[in-house]
Amino acid sequence: MSVYVVGHKIPDSDSICGAIALAYLKNQIGEPSIAARLGDLSPETAFILEKFGFEAPEFKTSYAGEEVFIVDHSELTQAPDDIAEATIVGIVDHHKLGDLTTSTPLECWIRPVGCSNTIIKMMYDFHGVAIPKDIAGIMMCAILSDTVIFKSPTCTTADIKCVEALAEIAGIEDFKELGMDMFKVKSAVEGTPARDLVMRDFKDFNMNGNKIGIGQLEVIDLSVFDDIKAELEADISALKAEGERHSVILLLTDIMKEGSELLVITDDAGLIERAYGIACENDRVWLDGVLSRKKQIVPQLQDALA
Amino acid sequence: MSVYVVGHKIPDSDSICGAIALAYLKNQIGEPSIAARLGDLSPETAFILEKFGFEAPEFKTSYAGEEVFIVDHSELTQAPDDIAEATIVGIVDHHKLGDLTTSTPLECWIRPVGCSNTIIKMMYDFHGVAIPKDIAGIMMCAILSDTVIFKSPTCTTADIKCVEALAEIAGIEDFKELGMDMFKVKSAVEGTPARDLVMRDFKDFNMNGNKIGIGQLEVIDLSVFDDIKAELEADISALKAEGERHSVILLLTDIMKEGSELLVITDDAGLIERAYGIACENDRVWLDGVLSRKKQIVPQLQDALA
Ligand SMILES: [Mn+2]
Ligand SMILES: [Mn+2]
Repeated sequence: MSVYVVGHKIPDSDSICGAIALAYLKNQIGEPSIAARLGDLSPETAFILEKFGFEAPEFKTSYAGEEVFIVDHSELTQAPDDIAEATIVGIVDHHKLGDLTTSTPLECWIRPVGCSNTIIKMMYDFHGVAIPKDIAGIMMCAILSDTVIFKSPTCTTADIKCVEALAEIAGIEDFKELGMDMFKVKSAVEGTPARDLVMRDFKDFNMNGNKIGIGQLEVIDLSVFDDIKAELEADISALKAEGERHSVILLLTDIMKEGSELLVITDDAGLIERAYGIACENDRVWLDGVLSRKKQIVPQLQDALA
Repeated sequence: MSVYVVGHKIPDSDSICGAIALAYLKNQIGEPSIAARLGDLSPETAFILEKFGFEAPEFKTSYAGEEVFIVDHSELTQAPDDIAEATIVGIVDHHKLGDLTTSTPLECWIRPVGCSNTIIKMMYDFHGVAIPKDIAGIMMCAILSDTVIFKSPTCTTADIKCVEALAEIAGIEDFKELGMDMFKVKSAVEGTPARDLVMRDFKDFNMNGNKIGIGQLEVIDLSVFDDIKAELEADISALKAEGERHSVILLLTDIMKEGSELLVITDDAGLIERAYGIACENDRVWLDGVLSRKKQIVPQLQDALA
């Protein structure tokens, strides 16, 4: 029986590249594995896979009766809907510890680093398996994406060293240039429906019983949103109602100015000020220096709702 | 600020030796750490610490405002009572994934092996830190205890290799003999009050909302319980009422015959038959080949209560 290696819903590059890289490793050490995904590829991820010659992992949403290795999360809301009927044999992740539980022992590789692929590199090293050139390329891109080319406060020395080692294996001379190419792909939002943009990197969290949806769009210049901000706001408002969410927040992150504008629709008018010390004006607020949802948005919101 | 390294409530040798070994490692890599414990040492653990010249870790039950590295569990019921007010910076464990969650990223070293100390040895290797002779000794004893000298079905090749490597470092020639000495200490139950015996290795589990207490006594000959079985049954019955538990089960494990007699007090008369395929007679049942609470008792019970 093969183990399915699968990242979170609305997969980002870390989830997709991590599933491919980890499934390869597992197969090398004699544990038959299949990379899978819970959703469509983002333009950024499609760019990465094409560059290094990979097909998208198998699209599969139901895992009842299967063995699953979870990548890049440990939250029920981000896992397959029927994960309770599957056997979780492992988790590799770099987020806060979520509410997934198991009834049997498993392997968890969770580290406070910038990207799951940095931890997957540690798994290759632990097992003494050489990383093929093309897999090194996609792992490196995932780390550059998650760490916003090392600018994110989530980025650690381990991530930087890992990118340098992977770039060497992949034969990439200027990895920062490749990172900027990725973010340019990410910044091409024109002509994309508002819902597609909002859902491109969207995660639901359970915060003290409240369902909170948080999306993030990282671009190299926020002006790309000037003409569509009202549309985005109408969409997250609809999304809040559809999903019976307590709040929906969309981070518009400027990776060059290094900060994020939040668009906020919430039942709790004081929430943003309690969490970040600045109140919204017209449901918008600029948070200087904020690049990381995981480190600079989620914990503060969780505390404000505790 | 120092990190407290602490195992579960009613600490076993894995929790105590693991806390000492991990705190030493963390201090070596520049992360100030203090080994702590949530309860009294068992006779077995006292024997191990005395043999290798260690003091008991600091007795400390409250961790509000502290940073904590959790050893040998990931369950709220087994963690410090005020763990929600602490920051969990890491977990090393070899059980099923429990219901501890965090609001910030952390490091989790969880592996499906026989003992947390086997994983702590991997942590030493990862960080390239040499294990001192005396620490190798207590780590080795913890693994021999958790794996019942390799007889438990939880024992893996990794545990055996780890014991062999640690025995070499510790300069122990016959580690199986030392293991038997440990289990002889464990088997000396005469004169100990029933409550002390029941609580010697007792864990509460949350199974689908039901509080289930499961104790285990491992001895080299079950006849030591002949005269006190009725007392033990009276005591687990009292324990069930005091803690408003759904069930209390006491495993009397014979490590030489390789099986366990279960003493069972429960609200659910069909539970044991649903879980293990054999019904109790007079609240007792012999399960041949059952040595491991974690692998042969807990998952089956959890499924029976799902
Ligand atoms: Mn990630
Ligand atoms: Mn243990």
